[in-house]
Amino acid sequence: MIPLRIGVMGLGTVGAGVFQVLERNSGEIARRTGRGLQVTQVSRRNLDAARELVGDRATVVADPHAIATSPDIDVVVELIGGTTLARDLVLLALRHGKHVVTANKALLAVHGEEIFGEARRLGLTVSFEAAVAGGIPVIKMLREGLSANRISWLAGIINGTTNFILTEMRDRGLPFADVLQEAQRLGYAEADPTFDIEGVDAAHKLALMGAIAFGMPVQFDSVYVEGITALHSQDIRYAGQMGYRIKLLGIARRRDDAGGVELRVHPTLVPEKCLMASVEGAMNAVMVQGDAVGTTLHYGKGAGSEPTASAVVADLVDIARLASAAPEHRVPSLSFQPDALQNLRVLSIDEVVTAFYLRLVVADRSGVLADITRILAAHDISLDAVRQRESSHGEQQTDLVVLTHETIESALRAALKDIQALPSVLQPVVALRKEELA
Amino acid sequence: MIPLRIGVMGLGTVGAGVFQVLERNSGEIARRTGRGLQVTQVSRRNLDAARELVGDRATVVADPHAIATSPDIDVVVELIGGTTLARDLVLLALRHGKHVVTANKALLAVHGEEIFGEARRLGLTVSFEAAVAGGIPVIKMLREGLSANRISWLAGIINGTTNFILTEMRDRGLPFADVLQEAQRLGYAEADPTFDIEGVDAAHKLALMGAIAFGMPVQFDSVYVEGITALHSQDIRYAGQMGYRIKLLGIARRRDDAGGVELRVHPTLVPEKCLMASVEGAMNAVMVQGDAVGTTLHYGKGAGSEPTASAVVADLVDIARLASAAPEHRVPSLSFQPDALQNLRVLSIDEVVTAFYLRLVVADRSGVLADITRILAAHDISLDAVRQRESSHGEQQTDLVVLTHETIESALRAALKDIQALPSVLQPVVALRKEELA
Repeated sequence: MIPLRIGVMGLGTVGAGVFQVLERNSGEIARRTGRGLQVTQVSRRNLDAARELVGDRATVVADPHAIATSPDIDVVVELIGGTTLARDLVLLALRHGKHVVTANKALLAVHGEEIFGEARRLGLTVSFEAAVAGGIPVIKMLREGLSANRISWLAGIINGTTNFILTEMRDRGLPFADVLQEAQRLGYAEADPTFDIEGVDAAHKLALMGAIAFGMPVQFDSVYVEGITALHSQDIRYAGQMGYRIKLLGIARRRDDAGGVELRVHPTLVPEKCLMASVEGAMNAVMVQGDAVGTTLHYGKGAGSEPTASAVVADLVDIARLASAAPEHRVPSLSFQPDALQNLRVLSIDEVVTAFYLRLVVADRSGVLADITRILAAHDISLDAVRQRESSHGEQQTDLVVLTHETIESALRAALKDIQALPSVLQPVVALRKEELA
Repeated sequence: MIPLRIGVMGLGTVGAGVFQVLERNSGEIARRTGRGLQVTQVSRRNLDAARELVGDRATVVADPHAIATSPDIDVVVELIGGTTLARDLVLLALRHGKHVVTANKALLAVHGEEIFGEARRLGLTVSFEAAVAGGIPVIKMLREGLSANRISWLAGIINGTTNFILTEMRDRGLPFADVLQEAQRLGYAEADPTFDIEGVDAAHKLALMGAIAFGMPVQFDSVYVEGITALHSQDIRYAGQMGYRIKLLGIARRRDDAGGVELRVHPTLVPEKCLMASVEGAMNAVMVQGDAVGTTLHYGKGAGSEPTASAVVADLVDIARLASAAPEHRVPSLSFQPDALQNLRVLSIDEVVTAFYLRLVVADRSGVLADITRILAAHDISLDAVRQRESSHGEQQTDLVVLTHETIESALRAALKDIQALPSVLQPVVALRKEELA
């Protein structure tokens, strides 16, 4: 069989990884696939740098449009990034009859509906294993491995930068700003880290996983997003003393009782005995709860040249196998058949149900705790644990840490308003969500 | 499209799970697959019990041969167990043009070559996700998710019974025999637990994973197997004091330096900081090291009615999608193309390279440690750590615990022979292998 002819648009770190993995493991991959996979064209603005990498083994062009429209390419790998040029190129490539593999979560989170729709109309595949959790095959696991299950929830550490920062904040007791600076120096955070630290990157990935898990359109705009920039190392310490670690989780949960789904990204307390708590540094992990399988967890590197290339190439292998088969033999991009997607409502954050960690700086006098518990009770919120800590702010102050049982967020917000109005509550209350992941 | 017609041979715990999951999630599964999956025939010796479960929704027969030969069945699910009748039935079903899904690791470990060969000849599929690690989609992960990688090693906790026993021995400091009895009472161990506690079940699964990871025929007979029956809780305690836990691991490792692969099942010390060390009770986990992706880990329930059914049904969904596609569009049973399998040599245990934990009961007098280190050094074995512990055997005795660096097993065995001959070594030396899994 003739080799699959691959065009890589954007020969940066990941593109180079794809080229190198396909070259280094060509024998192994051909043994698996029964067909060669060959990068025949690459694009990069810096032609010399590209030629240095690929030599005369692939054609080098400066303009990726040439690849998207080339008659000699079967699949394009889009690694340009961003949502403007990448969108144009992907649509152009599809209209020229090419399957598409992309690592671009932002593109699919924002323009997924249009891109998947166009691919479907043309009987082509858009694959994106590399867009979520790097080398861990979570997309395949959700779309195929767990296809017997009704998924009830999934929770992921799906941004390595923030997990690295949180790990360092905990291990070394340093404030967010210091650790961020170090992460930038080490290359774990970008010069402009906004997308990572504000949770946007995780929200992109969560929107994709949620769509696949529940069979709904990609709804990035409806994801509730809260980053880690406001997190105090003090809360990481207090959480640790109560047996919890704080992780930035992307959570998708089916809420049949409310006729919708929760899609949310925020710092979350998780029990330190849970495997998720042990996912350290820049590693990623995704937990999935299905009705038949129970809980599964999938762990690995969420970024980097070759881990991401591993996912891109796995998609290419699938395409090499199925490119000439009829579309009905392929797994649908969003896991469910296009005409079977449901317009599930994404709940507002007010409707979300979780437990909470609260930290209050209060005046050190009697009756304060009684006032607070009375207010929580009035809003139907019950207490799981209370701890008093010496405050670093002054002798007349005390830190009060409260763990609540599960409550609807609107009730918690109403209670916090009342608590904040107490004269003995001296600073804005810190409220973090807590999940048992069981 | 007409539904896929499924015949379940052997309606026991797992068979009932398959029936129930397919029925409960039929809507969800059809939304994914674009095609119904219907159990239309089941076999069970106890017809009444079967009828109670399936009602009039499926034909009940006593003899599974009727299903294997039925013209109205597209796929058979073999859940009979064992390697005799199951073999006959699977071959019969293939010769009657049916795809096969099985959870039977023993069958494939022993008769895999014959069965996969027959399926290939007939253009049919034999799927076995449920045969390894229950609901965790490790077969799909190895065959498809990591297809870009040259796998260097994998290590799995792939037997829930032994992991439950080891967890209890550690948590409660109890001897093996007591915990086994309790496990039998709780249903975690069978009345005849030999296959589990002697490591045979894990070896079946390892033989399958090794074949898929490296592209070699299934070589169960060549797997080195050592169970947990001789394990002392004392060693679990000492290992813990040195930062290790003891797990029964199935390990497959490529050894290019020796021109072969290691396939071995044995109790193994693993660092307690490694995620594998936190896999408790009856849970399963598989770690895989690929050259592009790095290390990944996959965790979940390794047994039970519905987790196993989750894997069986995932295989059925794949078949529903691909049954009518040409064979070249399907993933080969053993991941690699049949004509690309390599007859990799399985190394003898003498050739295996690992670090070791040694426990020696020695006379409490000077010069003993010097003698021992001298012997190890003479066999080119270097020490990583030594600890002396008060022996429970008597006042004149001391427990000496030694961790070695990596060594070839033959050297260790030769050294042990010399050490054992020392008059100051009072009991047989306990030697356990240690892996850093990094």
